[in-house]
This record gives sequence, structure tokens and C-alpha cells, in this order.
Amino acid sequence: MSQLHQFIDFAVHCARLAGEAILPYFRASPEVHNKAPQGKFDPVTAADRMAEAVVRREIERVYPDHGIHGEEQGVTAGRSPYTWFIDPIDGTRAFMLGHLHWGTLLALNDGSRPILGLMHQPYTGETFIGSQLGGEFRHGDSIRPLKTRATSRIEEVVLCSTDPAMLYTPHLKDAFDRLATHVRAVRWGGDCYTPCMVAAGSTELVVETGLKLWDVQPLIPIVEAAGGVISDWNGGPADRSDKVVIAANRELHQKVLRVMGYGG
Amino acid sequence: MSQLHQFIDFAVHCARLAGEAILPYFRASPEVHNKAPQGKFDPVTAADRMAEAVVRREIERVYPDHGIHGEEQGVTAGRSPYTWFIDPIDGTRAFMLGHLHWGTLLALNDGSRPILGLMHQPYTGETFIGSQLGGEFRHGDSIRPLKTRATSRIEEVVLCSTDPAMLYTPHLKDAFDRLATHVRAVRWGGDCYTPCMVAAGSTELVVETGLKLWDVQPLIPIVEAAGGVISDWNGGPADRSDKVVIAANRELHQKVLRVMGYGG
Repeated sequence: MSQLHQFIDFAVHCARLAGEAILPYFRASPEVHNKAPQGKFDPVTAADRMAEAVVRREIERVYPDHGIHGEEQGVTAGRSPYTWFIDPIDGTRAFMLGHLHWGTLLALNDGSRPILGLMHQPYTGETFIGSQLGGEFRHGDSIRPLKTRATSRIEEVVLCSTDPAMLYTPHLKDAFDRLATHVRAVRWGGDCYTPCMVAAGSTELVVETGLKLWDVQPLIPIVEAAGGVISDWNGGPADRSDKVVIAANRELHQKVLRVMGYGG
Repeated sequence: MSQLHQFIDFAVHCARLAGEAILPYFRASPEVHNKAPQGKFDPVTAADRMAEAVVRREIERVYPDHGIHGEEQGVTAGRSPYTWFIDPIDGTRAFMLGHLHWGTLLALNDGSRPILGLMHQPYTGETFIGSQLGGEFRHGDSIRPLKTRATSRIEEVVLCSTDPAMLYTPHLKDAFDRLATHVRAVRWGGDCYTPCMVAAGSTELVVETGLKLWDVQPLIPIVEAAGGVISDWNGGPADRSDKVVIAANRELHQKVLRVMGYGG
């Protein structure tokens, strides 16, 4: 088995451990909420911390040379060039509301770029994986390849984005609104789920702002392995920015950047 | 077994049949989309029609006296006062995008009010049921009661709504925006999922417009059986309006109506 295969198996294993740590906090019973001092019970923070701690422990055990960069506990430098990025729960608000569009994000960066990315939704048992070996969607016992759509007509696609409140400057909002007038419709909500849906060929276009390194690193291999394109709003590398455009194919991606004309 | 128990079992059975009809169309492979003439493949319409047809057939077979009011095929008058309401896929846009916040809605109205309501998400295997016998959440082999939260502090709740584009008049938008300034945050996206999350005690507040009879009828028993309150934007009956306010408890509901001050 190649080293990359081993890394993928290990990432799947870590994501499962994270999921086991998270699920007891998902949809915690209303009794728990009703009894807590008002506004004091925060299951998502507890789940986030538990999940990151368990994944960190496992990385330290199996790959003690590797660095770790997690949302909750920051950076642990490694002696090798490899660094793991961990977002234990991407989509914390969705999680809090009992919704389903959240998941654990993991990436392994080889010192120059993310060589594997993974999204795991433990409640639905879905895992999206991307690497040079290809893109894969696992659900229960079924495995199918990730493959994006060929649609490049901008007027036929739905623009997915998580939250209008993230368009926090007029310049951002103008670029987004320009794009919105060209697409079939805009759909809000989704977090880490929508890029995976582009990779899986269910939709074509995601535009986000406010992302962090631990969000972006895992998405890059998932999208690219499926044939999609991910960049910042100007076409530059997605992992140098908090703003990403994710498109099902290069032609659509280029059209979208032209219409947005961001230049920020 | 009481007649209501029998109706519930029958509704669960019909929802499962609908789910079996729907699932083959969910996340249809990108090859299918890539090969279809542009914009011509519409899996959600096909799934909607198939699912409603199979449920109608089953109602006609088991309760030939009952009326049927479905989204796709309209009204079939019955000889008894009972009428079934069917929304085979609520959340068609979510379905189209490969998202998870959609489901089959069923209600049985006894001639004066909906006496049972059901939401079934066949992909996740979740079923939310409400009636005079109580509220129930079924997931796989587990069953737990539906029970809303006691939180009534408006500044602590997240306002859930499906789509800002549904606020189609300035008067609607003003009332919604007034409420938005009082809550902790606004979350877009959700369709039939968010009222079920209020019933399940995961969240507290949903405000929607543009609903149809077949959407509203199933939600009323689900929300009420869990201890929640559902009305139109002025506090009147939810099933006479396309605009609903769904709150976890009466105190929160009254505060929300006061803040909105709709009067439309």
C-alpha cells in the first residue's frame, strides 16, 4: 500500500473517532437546554474540543513527527514537513440548530500543498475524500467516484453560499451581487456540504468568504480530485485567502470570475 | 388499536413508499446531467410525481372514501370528511442541490383540522410524527418523544427561514427585518426541516412565507404535539395563510408576534 493510501485510511479512521466524540452532543435533548442557566449550555464547543483532542492524540501516536494545525488548539509544529489541518465541526451554527449540513474536515499538507482532504458527516455516515488517487464518496458500504458536472452555462446554475452576513464590505457585496444577477438562483446555507456537492456532481457553484486555513485546505483536494476548480475570488490560490470560488469545471470558473470582477 | 394509531401506521407506510420512489432520483449521477440537453433533466419533478402517484394509489386502495389533496395532482374529493394532504418533496431546491433538508410531508385532516402530521426524510431515515397521541421522532430503530424548548428570551434564539427572496413585499420584509434585529442571528435554508427541529427541541423559531396548504397541514400537528405554537403572522390559524410563525412555546410566540407587528 502506498504512503498516500495509508494516510487516507488514517484520515478516515481519525474522522470516525471525531464523529464518535461529536455525536453525543448533536441534538442534545431539550431537557438539557431547558435546565441549563440561560444561554450557558454550549454543546457545539464541547463537541468541537473533544473531537479535536481525540484526533490530535491519534496523530501524535501514529505520526509523532507531523505538525498539527487545529481550529480549537492552534498549531503544534512538526519535525517533518507534513501538517494535518483539523476543523472538528465545520458548520457549527447548523450543528447547533440540529441541521445536517456540517461535518469534520481534515487535510494533510506535505509542506507545499494539501495532498489529501476529507469531509465526514458522522450522523449521516457520509465521507468525501480527495487526493491524487481520485475523489471518492463513501456512504455506508457504498463507494462511488466524485465527479463534477460539465454544465458551464452560468444562467443555469444555482449559486450556493452559507450566509449573506459574511459579505461584510460593500466591495464584497457588489461582486457577489453582480454574480447573483447572472445565475438561476441563490441558495443560502450549506457550509462544508456545498463544496462536497459540487465534487459529487449535484451542483455547480459555491462562493464563500470568511473561511479559515483549516476549512480551505481539506476542500482543495476534494474539489480538484473530482474535476472542479477552487481559487480565491481573483483566481489566485485558494489557500492564501478567506474567499473562495468553487466551480464544477474550468469554463464555468472563468466565467464566474469575469462576472464578479472582484479585484480586491 | 385506535383508529388514530391505524392512521399513523398507514401514514408511516405511505411515507416509506414515497421515499422508495424518490431516492433513485436523489443525487442522480453527473453523467446523467452531463448527457442531458442543457437544462432539460429535472429529477425532482420526476421524483415528486412518482412519489405522489404511489401514495395516492395506496390511499385509494386502503381508504377509498378519503379525499386527497396533493401538490402535483391536485384535489380528489372524498365521500368521507377525511382528506389527506401530500407534499411528496418539500424542499425541492435543496433536493436538486444534493442537500439534506427536504422531506415528504403528509397530513390527515378530519374535515375541521389536521389530526396527524408527518415528515419523512428517506435518505437519513428520519420520521417526525405529530398527533393527539403525542409527538415522535423515529430514526432507524430509535424512537424518542418530540418536545420543544422552554427558552423564551428572544435575544437568545436563532431565527430560521428558508429564503430571503420569499419576503416579496416591503411590508413582509419590514416585519421580518424588525424581528431580525431582536434575535441572536438569522439562519437561511431549511424548508420542512426547521419546523421539525423546533418540535425536536433543537431550535426555537421559524418564520416562513409562501407556504401552501400541503406544507402547512402536516406541520401543525408536529409542532403542536411537541408543545410548540404555530400561527400565521398575526396569530390567526396557520392553515388559512401562506405565512407562518413557529415558536417553541407560547411566551416566545407572543413576543415574536409583538415584535413583528405585522398586521397584514
